[in-house]
Amino acid sequence: MEPVLSAIKSRRSIRAYQPDLVPLDDIMTLLDAARWAPSGKNGQPWRFAVIQEDQQLKSRIANLTAYRKWVDQAPCLVVVFLDKSLMYDRQKDTLAIGASIQNLLLAAQSRGLGTCWLGEILNHEDQVRQLLAVPDHLEILAVITVGYPAATQAPTRRRDILENVVLR
Amino acid sequence: MEPVLSAIKSRRSIRAYQPDLVPLDDIMTLLDAARWAPSGKNGQPWRFAVIQEDQQLKSRIANLTAYRKWVDQAPCLVVVFLDKSLMYDRQKDTLAIGASIQNLLLAAQSRGLGTCWLGEILNHEDQVRQLLAVPDHLEILAVITVGYPAATQAPTRRRDILENVVLR
Repeated sequence: MEPVLSAIKSRRSIRAYQPDLVPLDDIMTLLDAARWAPSGKNGQPWRFAVIQEDQQLKSRIANLTAYRKWVDQAPCLVVVFLDKSLMYDRQKDTLAIGASIQNLLLAAQSRGLGTCWLGEILNHEDQVRQLLAVPDHLEILAVITVGYPAATQAPTRRRDILENVVLR
Repeated sequence: MEPVLSAIKSRRSIRAYQPDLVPLDDIMTLLDAARWAPSGKNGQPWRFAVIQEDQQLKSRIANLTAYRKWVDQAPCLVVVFLDKSLMYDRQKDTLAIGASIQNLLLAAQSRGLGTCWLGEILNHEDQVRQLLAVPDHLEILAVITVGYPAATQAPTRRRDILENVVLR
């Protein structure tokens, strides 16, 4: 299969990681991919923070999720923000950040890195904000775990058949 | 460069198309890629409609944008919907649809097809809904033009340098 389609269709959420840290060069490749997403009025409303060097901070954030066990085991977290000072339309800017996250996930896949997109952690956004001392103009939209996948992994989750998602 | 990263970084919005229709097989590849995006609780809240066979309908929709000239020239439109009956969290579902759209755009790029993500058309969402007879549970989040790029194209738009999007 063509490599881009193959990456899109084989990517899955990784919830078990090897302990190795993610090389800084690879982290930068992921963030570089993220910033090449399209955005309305080319507003590029995304911002990112990487948590890897401070493993104690990472553990504190992991403790704010229902999945603390495996999140804490992931060597690296990327926090994804909407920069409200760059926002022109909340819905369109949110879509752009979704596109940006997908670029990040696919870039990781292409470098042999696993990721999991955490949404549930937003139930504790206030506490994550405090831990990270996030300024007011940034809103946390997601946290992504990053690391080398452990050997055994779950299969991809079921998808609706194509006929069900296309309107006639 | 690695093919996935190359696709991500070289993709640009295409606003001039050759008149050739998009083969149905390619359209299905794009929609298939779109449905493989991750989504919160695996809700897969996206739905798509393809407008190509009915060129008169396409022209009517093009007339609802500020870019009617080149939108009408695009051979194919994909309308992207949020299915509110599948929604669990508007923000997270909107992010998922952004990821889904990015898959569609990258899959198109990998098949030699150009795309442009239209947001401005949502200023006339009510009229687009009427033309398409969209049921109440579907909300239009985007319209994507698809077709083979004309020979001469604008360069990619400027991006913020990486250092500006990563927090220290």
